[in-house]
Amino acid sequence: MQRNISVEKLTQTPIEKQQIEIAERKCIGHPDSLADGIAEAVSRALSRKYLEECDAVLHHNTDQGEVVAGESIPKFGGGNVTRPIYILLTGRATKDFQGKTIPTDAIAVEAARNYLRETLQFLDMERDVIVDCRMGVGSSDLRDVFRACGDNPVPHANDTSFGIGHAPFSDLENIILRVSEHIDNNVRPKNPIIGTDVKIMGLRQNNEINLTLCVPMIDRFCGSMDDYVDAVGFIGEEVKKVASGCTDRKVNVWINTGDRVDKGSIFLTVTGTSAEMGDDGSVGRGNRCNGLITPQRPMSMEATSGKNPINHIGKIYNLLSTEIATQCVNEIDGIDDLYVRLLSQIGKPIDQPFVASAQYIAEEECSTSVEKDINSIIDERLADIASITERVIRGELKTF
Amino acid sequence: MQRNISVEKLTQTPIEKQQIEIAERKCIGHPDSLADGIAEAVSRALSRKYLEECDAVLHHNTDQGEVVAGESIPKFGGGNVTRPIYILLTGRATKDFQGKTIPTDAIAVEAARNYLRETLQFLDMERDVIVDCRMGVGSSDLRDVFRACGDNPVPHANDTSFGIGHAPFSDLENIILRVSEHIDNNVRPKNPIIGTDVKIMGLRQNNEINLTLCVPMIDRFCGSMDDYVDAVGFIGEEVKKVASGCTDRKVNVWINTGDRVDKGSIFLTVTGTSAEMGDDGSVGRGNRCNGLITPQRPMSMEATSGKNPINHIGKIYNLLSTEIATQCVNEIDGIDDLYVRLLSQIGKPIDQPFVASAQYIAEEECSTSVEKDINSIIDERLADIASITERVIRGELKTF
Amino acid sequence: MQRNISVEKLTQTPIEKQQIEIAERKCIGHPDSLADGIAEAVSRALSRKYLEECDAVLHHNTDQGEVVAGESIPKFGGGNVTRPIYILLTGRATKDFQGKTIPTDAIAVEAARNYLRETLQFLDMERDVIVDCRMGVGSSDLRDVFRACGDNPVPHANDTSFGIGHAPFSDLENIILRVSEHIDNNVRPKNPIIGTDVKIMGLRQNNEINLTLCVPMIDRFCGSMDDYVDAVGFIGEEVKKVASGCTDRKVNVWINTGDRVDKGSIFLTVTGTSAEMGDDGSVGRGNRCNGLITPQRPMSMEATSGKNPINHIGKIYNLLSTEIATQCVNEIDGIDDLYVRLLSQIGKPIDQPFVASAQYIAEEECSTSVEKDINSIIDERLADIASITERVIRGELKTF
Amino acid sequence: MQRNISVEKLTQTPIEKQQIEIAERKCIGHPDSLADGIAEAVSRALSRKYLEECDAVLHHNTDQGEVVAGESIPKFGGGNVTRPIYILLTGRATKDFQGKTIPTDAIAVEAARNYLRETLQFLDMERDVIVDCRMGVGSSDLRDVFRACGDNPVPHANDTSFGIGHAPFSDLENIILRVSEHIDNNVRPKNPIIGTDVKIMGLRQNNEINLTLCVPMIDRFCGSMDDYVDAVGFIGEEVKKVASGCTDRKVNVWINTGDRVDKGSIFLTVTGTSAEMGDDGSVGRGNRCNGLITPQRPMSMEATSGKNPINHIGKIYNLLSTEIATQCVNEIDGIDDLYVRLLSQIGKPIDQPFVASAQYIAEEECSTSVEKDINSIIDERLADIASITERVIRGELKTF
Repeated sequence: MQRNISVEKLTQTPIEKQQIEIAERKCIGHPDSLADGIAEAVSRALSRKYLEECDAVLHHNTDQGEVVAGESIPKFGGGNVTRPIYILLTGRATKDFQGKTIPTDAIAVEAARNYLRETLQFLDMERDVIVDCRMGVGSSDLRDVFRACGDNPVPHANDTSFGIGHAPFSDLENIILRVSEHIDNNVRPKNPIIGTDVKIMGLRQNNEINLTLCVPMIDRFCGSMDDYVDAVGFIGEEVKKVASGCTDRKVNVWINTGDRVDKGSIFLTVTGTSAEMGDDGSVGRGNRCNGLITPQRPMSMEATSGKNPINHIGKIYNLLSTEIATQCVNEIDGIDDLYVRLLSQIGKPIDQPFVASAQYIAEEECSTSVEKDINSIIDERLADIASITERVIRGELKTF
Repeated sequence: MQRNISVEKLTQTPIEKQQIEIAERKCIGHPDSLADGIAEAVSRALSRKYLEECDAVLHHNTDQGEVVAGESIPKFGGGNVTRPIYILLTGRATKDFQGKTIPTDAIAVEAARNYLRETLQFLDMERDVIVDCRMGVGSSDLRDVFRACGDNPVPHANDTSFGIGHAPFSDLENIILRVSEHIDNNVRPKNPIIGTDVKIMGLRQNNEINLTLCVPMIDRFCGSMDDYVDAVGFIGEEVKKVASGCTDRKVNVWINTGDRVDKGSIFLTVTGTSAEMGDDGSVGRGNRCNGLITPQRPMSMEATSGKNPINHIGKIYNLLSTEIATQCVNEIDGIDDLYVRLLSQIGKPIDQPFVASAQYIAEEECSTSVEKDINSIIDERLADIASITERVIRGELKTF
Repeated sequence: MQRNISVEKLTQTPIEKQQIEIAERKCIGHPDSLADGIAEAVSRALSRKYLEECDAVLHHNTDQGEVVAGESIPKFGGGNVTRPIYILLTGRATKDFQGKTIPTDAIAVEAARNYLRETLQFLDMERDVIVDCRMGVGSSDLRDVFRACGDNPVPHANDTSFGIGHAPFSDLENIILRVSEHIDNNVRPKNPIIGTDVKIMGLRQNNEINLTLCVPMIDRFCGSMDDYVDAVGFIGEEVKKVASGCTDRKVNVWINTGDRVDKGSIFLTVTGTSAEMGDDGSVGRGNRCNGLITPQRPMSMEATSGKNPINHIGKIYNLLSTEIATQCVNEIDGIDDLYVRLLSQIGKPIDQPFVASAQYIAEEECSTSVEKDINSIIDERLADIASITERVIRGELKTF
Repeated sequence: MQRNISVEKLTQTPIEKQQIEIAERKCIGHPDSLADGIAEAVSRALSRKYLEECDAVLHHNTDQGEVVAGESIPKFGGGNVTRPIYILLTGRATKDFQGKTIPTDAIAVEAARNYLRETLQFLDMERDVIVDCRMGVGSSDLRDVFRACGDNPVPHANDTSFGIGHAPFSDLENIILRVSEHIDNNVRPKNPIIGTDVKIMGLRQNNEINLTLCVPMIDRFCGSMDDYVDAVGFIGEEVKKVASGCTDRKVNVWINTGDRVDKGSIFLTVTGTSAEMGDDGSVGRGNRCNGLITPQRPMSMEATSGKNPINHIGKIYNLLSTEIATQCVNEIDGIDDLYVRLLSQIGKPIDQPFVASAQYIAEEECSTSVEKDINSIIDERLADIASITERVIRGELKTF
């Protein structure tokens, strides 16, 4: 059956030429990111266990769940979490399948705790967090089970929904991602004072870029206000250095502008995340699956994290459309901006979207075959849609 | 102090002239909408009580919370909810202020229960739902308290964040909103079989519009499969009639395409919402504050519902930018599409955004003063930003 | 099969002739009594629904559950509950039986809420209490199902456990029960200021009886400290009057001895129960099934409330042994004190206890047939053990 | 002030000469014992932290809390817990004191998890259990704070309540305690198949003792039904050997009489406690503070575990009366049975009970000074009541 693919050229000022651009990233320790990471960890653990026990991934959705903030009293040299963070795992998962019972609740709790332990090094797993579980019981439609090997039938869309992706990243988007990586991979390993709940807000006004960061400091590594002020200064320089290295534009960096150092009101934490003292988090409220929040770009509201990777459109189409956009931009010359949307209709095979739509912007003259080429890539990638499922299960795809 | 306002003309194919357009609405009984509605109801109840007791709105944020699905066994003529829906209220609220104690938890539970009772007529409040509360205790910064009368100082942004709005609504967006209103105001009152958890997904491909609706039927009003099929047919005709009346384009309507009537697999419910049996909901995962999910339009990820209306950017700037866009389009001729973004920096007065940016698209020649006029409206509305707070408290502004 | 019945005469100072005697009652609104009452209400509602749907009472046990105190700010004229009481329903119940699904969780929540509404008139069910449910799923052994009519097989003991009863009530025990009834039936209806969480502690030293009562006052009916002091005085007189009418012994009455009126530290409440502000309650921690805590008498630790009435020894044997003791004392002359113990062994028919033991004290010469008569009554009542089940289901037996 | 002490001789058949005697012990892994152990561990951890931070033990009560059973699928060779055990910590604790904040919730969660880890070796703390906390906030009355050193004032009774103790242990009581110790100290260390949730029910009929034990086997050490049957046989012999060594009476031992080996219905577990699959537990529902449930003996309904050791009568008087009884029996000749009761009145100093009553049974002629001697010991021990508090905090006193 022929796929309903639409490729359209938009006459549009490319993002880089617009005067104003905003983009944002909530890094790994942000409460919303924690919720996303836990949800995805639970889904991955379930998928692996299902494959191990049943030789098939069974239906589940864990794309919900709540991080309820605790209370803490940080202080220079080391304070305390006084009320544990409370994490509620919800969603549902198939528990019984062909005579086997899968300990879904136990798996979920373990996966969440493991994820937290790896992600929040300074969270005391024995006293600073409560992981609770109210997961429901789902059931598996045999049509839509993903077998480990062999001829899987094409699953049917679980919902009428859509996924969206774009490429390439703008200058600003790139910078934000690079700064995030730099902090995680280079700065924090040598400077444990830097917490993980960093938020990077980027604003480009013409050729001037302002990066506003919230950076929590970890109190046990911060002996005094001087240490704090030094750390703020240091991280500011690091950010500026990396950001400036990515662009010719002017970059201004602002760190913790909400601080009032004179009043002792600063972003000091015990564990490096504001979830310890006031900020709740939810799945799907933070970054899209490309790692960013990009209000100038088309976005899907669907949470990618935690959804089952077999037939959940909100996950598969978001991941796939992002990959399609990237592949097109890499392989086809002359595209300034490309937006890919995949829309499903509940109950239809997922390789046959209700519509697959690409909109491209190309100011320069570009290859005459651009539309045909985009069409081909979309068609090809839809035919191979099962590989998304496989790679999600192997943990190869980021979801936030 | 002069405001940093930027108005920019974009060269861009207006949305109506793009080949493909997608938009969506989750109606009042959708689990995500329930979560939004509860969050906002709690915030409004707190605000009113604060004013009553303290003559000021104190800090609070209830823009989180989870609707955990129950289990049900619907059947023709009337079935049962077998496991209650579980609703967790989180967030935080100021409990003690100048010697007074506000019963924040009790207020939150009551507001949530009242909201549910009004919204889900067929939910048995005594057995089908559990409303739990794990709200934390916040504290009020005296600078940012909103007094009922008198000279309020301008509050300071609680976060580095942004709000976004657009106008006018496209043909497709309009249709979706009209269909939603028609079902709520005209169809359901006479046809109680129609549940509230309607989801409307719209796709426009050139001049053809496809509306795909999921419409739950309520079992006590549905005696047989014939009744169900009739109701599906009836609602389809109603939708088609209303939608066609709003547009010259061709409209196709699809209702409950996931049903398999032959297998008895249909969208039958006890209470009219899928929260009774499988679908969880979260605050901020559904409609933006204009009532829609519009992936082709710039959107903010911030939940508008439940945030405090004093200084929470994610609420105030989303509401204000939407109003600014609408006012501009109403008062200034020749604008095809207008996007307004307001970006804050934590700790700065909220009437002084880091940047207020408007981007407009105008294919025809439009008034030479358009940019100046937009600028004026933005400036004016920012100066009057406190009126947003007032109207939210009075319940005059929709948030989802 | 012959029953293992042992009747033994003890040489023992009867309780009335001992110098010291202690007994206690936690009245209807005490947190432990609330927990008991809820547990039993849930069991009864389940039993009724099981009979209605399945024509048989299925296995369940709801003899657990916790009343977690809220927080309140009582004040003269009327205060507030500021944090709702949290009630956790646990235990387990059979959900699926011969193709039918019983909405056990929904039934439990409804029964608990109904019970609270009836018992605590001034508890606002919409804001002062959260009823949560984490009941597990049990399964029904067909052998031990109780059919509404027809020849029920004798169920098998679910546990190795015992029940205990005594008769007659001592002077002190009698007084405590009468005082409790008088307050509930005569005093409170006309004096709504008197809360339900009354605790009556009785001490008899030779011929002097001291009754120490904790009596919560309800703030909305208490306009001032004078009102409070008056109410304390009034209830003290009422208690003294009733108690003195039951005995020739001297009676002293002490009300709220922990108060410090001068410091404003008194037992004032919003709802009439200390569960609103500090005292948790659990099933089985309060009165035994005769309505009393009697440390001088043999007692079972088993909670009677909430256990299934089919085969749960901790319920059936406690109720039955109390009835046997009472019947013996009523029908046989000359018994001063009688203690009946029934001990089961798991898996054995409940009408065949491992041992049924009666110990009687008779100072005066009593009938030579006393042992034979007791034996007969025990044998008879064990043969008719199913009637206990029936009467529990009909709500005719008190459990606390 | 002279203490109100009453010593009375009872004419009574001593327990050893009664025909029938029942006693019971729920060993360490029984759900009720787990609840007790957790409650006491939390109280001890709080007390220690209070002393460390505030140089005083502050008010708290954690004598509530619920162990909600999980679900498991044990199987020969090793099965799984499929739904984690859920543990709810409740009660209340002073959080703020003289400018210091004590992280009470975090301490409670940690103490509970540590206790579980030590007690249930085969419970996977990362997946088989959820420890949740809904503890309230108490406040400390400065009068009743226990300082680490120096002249502590005598605290005031928190309630009108009583404690009870008896001595010496009967033959049957002794045997039960010895069997329990033998299993814990000698059998299990070498035979890890033996779970900790052992229940020992003892019945003495004249000179024949029947011990009925429920003994869970741990599946990972049990490869087959033969292994199970062997283990049951083995433990039966061990129990018989130890029990027979303590008494001249005839001893019969019954293990897991509810098993139906032919149907595969046996007491096999994953972790060694029935809390994994069906049995809930509560504080204060199991053993009294002497380690036993003794329905023929006077007992208090008060939970000893988890109560604060400063002024909570339900704890202090239970522990003290048991010690007094033991000391009297050890130091004074000729007492067959001794019962000690201490009754408080709320608000009065705890070293001045409303009445301290001893009842002794002595068939043989005993020393003429026996009443005076008992009186002296009671007086002395009441004068030294603070030492109970100290020893509880040091963890020297068992509470269940």
